[in-house]
Amino acid sequence: MLQISKRGQEMPPSPIRKLVPYAEAAVSKGIKVYHLNIGQPDIETPQLMLDAVRNSDFKILDYGHSAGNESYRRKLVGYYKGIGIDLDYKQILITTGGSEALLFAFMACFDPGDEVIIPEPFYANYHGFAAEAGVEVVTITSDISTGFALPPVEEIEKKITARTKGIVICNPNNPTGYVYSKEELEQLGAMVAKHNLFFFCDEAYREFNYEGEMPMSSLNLTGVNDNVVMVDTISKRYSACGGRIGALVTRNRSLINTVMKFAQARLCPPSFAQMAGEAALDLPADYFDQTKAEYKSRRDLIVSRLNAMDGVYCPKPSGAFYAIAELPIDDANKFCQWLLESFSYKGATVMLAPGTGFYATPGLGKNQVRLAYVLNKDDINAAMDCLIEALKVYSTDLR
Amino acid sequence: MLQISKRGQEMPPSPIRKLVPYAEAAVSKGIKVYHLNIGQPDIETPQLMLDAVRNSDFKILDYGHSAGNESYRRKLVGYYKGIGIDLDYKQILITTGGSEALLFAFMACFDPGDEVIIPEPFYANYHGFAAEAGVEVVTITSDISTGFALPPVEEIEKKITARTKGIVICNPNNPTGYVYSKEELEQLGAMVAKHNLFFFCDEAYREFNYEGEMPMSSLNLTGVNDNVVMVDTISKRYSACGGRIGALVTRNRSLINTVMKFAQARLCPPSFAQMAGEAALDLPADYFDQTKAEYKSRRDLIVSRLNAMDGVYCPKPSGAFYAIAELPIDDANKFCQWLLESFSYKGATVMLAPGTGFYATPGLGKNQVRLAYVLNKDDINAAMDCLIEALKVYSTDLR
Repeated sequence: MLQISKRGQEMPPSPIRKLVPYAEAAVSKGIKVYHLNIGQPDIETPQLMLDAVRNSDFKILDYGHSAGNESYRRKLVGYYKGIGIDLDYKQILITTGGSEALLFAFMACFDPGDEVIIPEPFYANYHGFAAEAGVEVVTITSDISTGFALPPVEEIEKKITARTKGIVICNPNNPTGYVYSKEELEQLGAMVAKHNLFFFCDEAYREFNYEGEMPMSSLNLTGVNDNVVMVDTISKRYSACGGRIGALVTRNRSLINTVMKFAQARLCPPSFAQMAGEAALDLPADYFDQTKAEYKSRRDLIVSRLNAMDGVYCPKPSGAFYAIAELPIDDANKFCQWLLESFSYKGATVMLAPGTGFYATPGLGKNQVRLAYVLNKDDINAAMDCLIEALKVYSTDLR
Repeated sequence: MLQISKRGQEMPPSPIRKLVPYAEAAVSKGIKVYHLNIGQPDIETPQLMLDAVRNSDFKILDYGHSAGNESYRRKLVGYYKGIGIDLDYKQILITTGGSEALLFAFMACFDPGDEVIIPEPFYANYHGFAAEAGVEVVTITSDISTGFALPPVEEIEKKITARTKGIVICNPNNPTGYVYSKEELEQLGAMVAKHNLFFFCDEAYREFNYEGEMPMSSLNLTGVNDNVVMVDTISKRYSACGGRIGALVTRNRSLINTVMKFAQARLCPPSFAQMAGEAALDLPADYFDQTKAEYKSRRDLIVSRLNAMDGVYCPKPSGAFYAIAELPIDDANKFCQWLLESFSYKGATVMLAPGTGFYATPGLGKNQVRLAYVLNKDDINAAMDCLIEALKVYSTDLR
């Protein structure tokens, strides 16, 4: 019998994978499904980005540079400069989505058996990339009662062993929407310097902070130039998820040279979407104002609707476009499946991401769901109407 | 001191990486460099593929399905059916280039410490993907004197240990141009069945066989449905290398389900190029005739020019668009660097890929180079004129 690898067996499936057939079945029964389960924005991709591809006139779709087109990397230096981050273009390597940046970072920094600390709940695919690299994920739990703030650094330090080689954060955070403060980042910076750890910082949602300035970038911490590996992407910023263009940014020269070897093995990032990514840097300075205002009003709506429901608690997130809510349910997986399989209200239902998928500690997140507010306000209202009804039926019939 | 991973340190660099700065320096001195070093076709990408992207009218560049667009996968079933391979669309998973298909295959089949057998010389990046998966590459040498035919299967079998989990071939072969016969494939099929091995077959160059019918696909071997993992790509077939669209095809259900977990972690393959890939399936049936005729005449030209040179031997390859030639040189790396750094003829020089980069056994390939005949015949002639002169100067001055 041919054996699948242990790595393959242990690779965690997507948290919503089991739900997809139920969602498809609901749709095939004519039920409208409000997708609050995935971070796919409904915001249109800027026309200028699509036009850059559509109006291109090359004849051969040829290989690009393994590190990404130099013109794009040089222009990105300007983007980062504009938000107060000083870089050389050689410190930027274009990747196939933020996903590949994370994979390359883990591959280049970790060996099988190493440990990486990640505050939970966390973006589920970190677990996948860790499994690919053979790294063990060690979690520290952030709590819904503090709005998922960073746990005290002393508590994080207790998790450090001889095998610990790094820590991962996502700021603003997916799935919690929490925005780490300058103080929290500086504490983490001091910690990684003290313990000689890599500091992986996923800053995909940088522009989406609704309560203040753009959060501090990990690249602006002092004394940790060799530690910081920043992961970036055009996916959420410009609603260009299907392009698969991201970046790995680090001032650690030996690391970027190593990452380059992984980049060369896969030849180059996708050409078409690189054109879109480069064009995005010509968007007007106020581009994010409207998008941010829209997300902010959606956040205000969804959080107030959730907190108005009996037994529901949703801390108000400051950034990204996610919220985690605690529901009066026994088992989020069961509830999310039931929503798709057995429930509808006015011909519609809601697809949510079960909280358990974002925790590594068994049992955590069982009464939590993640909601991505990537629908317009009418749809959010309709989805919340569904959820109210669903919780009533579920609580009387099924708990 | 922060340590790069052992995996990162051991990751082999691209075989031509060291030559790139010399090529750039030559160009900056005004020297024309004939690039015979890389499989980047000069053939135009079919207009219909580019138009599919340029005439698209979607508003949001959103995530696609992790396994690739269903419409594309279903249409690929028709492409494969047309060349005599029966598949279900669920046996096809669209990847970010053939590169990602190889990485996923290795990740899903191998654990660190496993061994994979690869006839050498082989496509250098197999080594990279093996390093990423922690797999040890065990080689069996195919010889230039037999035109790089498959070594006797008994010899290959001697390389099998308790840790061997698979064998990789590329057919038609990069870098040798060799096309494996039905008999050779059936022998390999019997071997993988007997020893319970995965059989990874890279069929990127399927359409480019100049001496006969399309080579037999690994997917048409009998009794090895669970063993065979076929890797495909649009890169060479349609001169669409920058699109980064490939496919992993297997009838092994447990394997494709495992690969799907890796695919979900990276979300989806690039959207724009998937449109181009799908459009390619509408090309007329005679699309390859002209391209094949062109490559065939280039092959005939380059091989006869090479064999007419003193001390040069180049077996005539049947497929792909590569040839390996033995030159009267001491060290291919030194020679290839010298060509770029210190030589020019009529204002031009040639960039070649040193043979050593395609062998894992130290010392092999030192007097060999790989030539990709991806230039038009005038340029090939000019490049061969350069090479004649270069060999004269090199042999008198430097050997």
